[in-house]
Amino acid sequence: MEIRTVAIVGLGLIGGSLARDLAVRGSRVLGYDRDPGNLRAALGSGCVHAALDSTLEGVGEADVLILAVPVSAAPSVLTTAAPHLRDIRLVTDAGSTKQKIGEAAGALGIGGRFVGSHPLAGGHQAGWTASRTGFFEDARVFLCATASTNPEVLEFARELWISLGAHPEIIDAAAHDQQLAWTSHLPQVTSTALALALASAGIRPADPGPGGRDMTRLAGSSPEMWTDIARNNAEALSEAILSLEIKLGDMRAALATGDEQAIRRFFTAGHQWSRRE
Amino acid sequence: MEIRTVAIVGLGLIGGSLARDLAVRGSRVLGYDRDPGNLRAALGSGCVHAALDSTLEGVGEADVLILAVPVSAAPSVLTTAAPHLRDIRLVTDAGSTKQKIGEAAGALGIGGRFVGSHPLAGGHQAGWTASRTGFFEDARVFLCATASTNPEVLEFARELWISLGAHPEIIDAAAHDQQLAWTSHLPQVTSTALALALASAGIRPADPGPGGRDMTRLAGSSPEMWTDIARNNAEALSEAILSLEIKLGDMRAALATGDEQAIRRFFTAGHQWSRRE
Repeated sequence: MEIRTVAIVGLGLIGGSLARDLAVRGSRVLGYDRDPGNLRAALGSGCVHAALDSTLEGVGEADVLILAVPVSAAPSVLTTAAPHLRDIRLVTDAGSTKQKIGEAAGALGIGGRFVGSHPLAGGHQAGWTASRTGFFEDARVFLCATASTNPEVLEFARELWISLGAHPEIIDAAAHDQQLAWTSHLPQVTSTALALALASAGIRPADPGPGGRDMTRLAGSSPEMWTDIARNNAEALSEAILSLEIKLGDMRAALATGDEQAIRRFFTAGHQWSRRE
Repeated sequence: MEIRTVAIVGLGLIGGSLARDLAVRGSRVLGYDRDPGNLRAALGSGCVHAALDSTLEGVGEADVLILAVPVSAAPSVLTTAAPHLRDIRLVTDAGSTKQKIGEAAGALGIGGRFVGSHPLAGGHQAGWTASRTGFFEDARVFLCATASTNPEVLEFARELWISLGAHPEIIDAAAHDQQLAWTSHLPQVTSTALALALASAGIRPADPGPGGRDMTRLAGSSPEMWTDIARNNAEALSEAILSLEIKLGDMRAALATGDEQAIRRFFTAGHQWSRRE
């Protein structure tokens, strides 16, 4: 597993951490960020060796191109980069939704060399300054091939993530987005909605006990990132939200009618689920 | 602050921890638990010096009576104890709702000596074996007087909790239950409802990332305890649940119509709330 040169577009928490890890492993790192201050900080660190400009013409020098930009920006960045890929071996990304970017790669005729990546790593902090080496150590990473991804390209992507200490899992892009709507996007929306409900009742963030504070922590996540993700996975997420609304409505109905058995069933079923393997 | 003898009914996590702390501070502790095994364990520890029987006739020997039983059981325990209180100085409890128990004390003619307590301390573990000394160190404790509580009784309750390292705050019982519906009971119901929604989609507890796991942790709490609390505070809790359903429905509508501005407002408002003091 050797990458001579890697091009990374987006040098925030994810892109920056990738740059640091790959630089440490001996790769030459070409970087671009639309925020000039972020790009300067990355260059100043010595982990990004040269800057690309907004045309992304220089990506063709790389063996690997990684997009670490918001999911809504990724297709247009891919469009900009596509004419300059030359004999790049792998193009991948790091976004939380995988179907649209894979379709975009296919439409641009680069599906054979594209593998979507979604590392389950993140945090409340953003930008180059939040990035660090070892960020992907032990993280799960979902890998989604396109309809035309070459098997050796998929294997190369797998080895890339393994070399960073991560645990890649190959999954169909549609299944990924469906699953993440439940395991990640619904919890985020739930936390934000709970925060808004508490706000409407005049409750401040410090008022709940430890359990309530756990439940509202995700509400502090980046609004820009989550606006993007939610729009990108709107259909599956809507379905998941509706399912939660129905469970809440059931409970509210049980409370209204004083149906002790139904109230007990509600809490018991949640408790039983939490004990499942 | 000296308590010669304290009677504690219910020797679980809360009652057991009270027994340990008060025994350490030199009080004689009389204890009762409807679970004979739990009562034996408490007596065996040496922190509970003598057992009461189910008639609670012996509580009159105590200066203080503390009920640490489920909120639905507390009024009937109070009714059992009421004829035997003799010159007890303070009767208090430790339940998560405060209006009904205060009303029960008033109706039994012991409102003058009653102060409702709600320590914000707990955990997933239950029973005497989970109890420990220092459990209330730095915990917030809500104190709710009845309409007829004597001021010196309220002050005595305050000193009792301060002596255990806790931080008592005096609050009206109705305001307490209203506030807790939002800060504690709604987060619990939300976590359980989210767990049930995930269960309906075939998601297992280990599938979500760290954020989603935080959001479903409370679902593992005691179904019995929460059935009780929810029933005891049904009206305020229903209102809080409805408020959450509305926030979720708003977001779902924004997703359905692709209303980017509304989606952004949703996440931005949650983010802003989480930054409030």
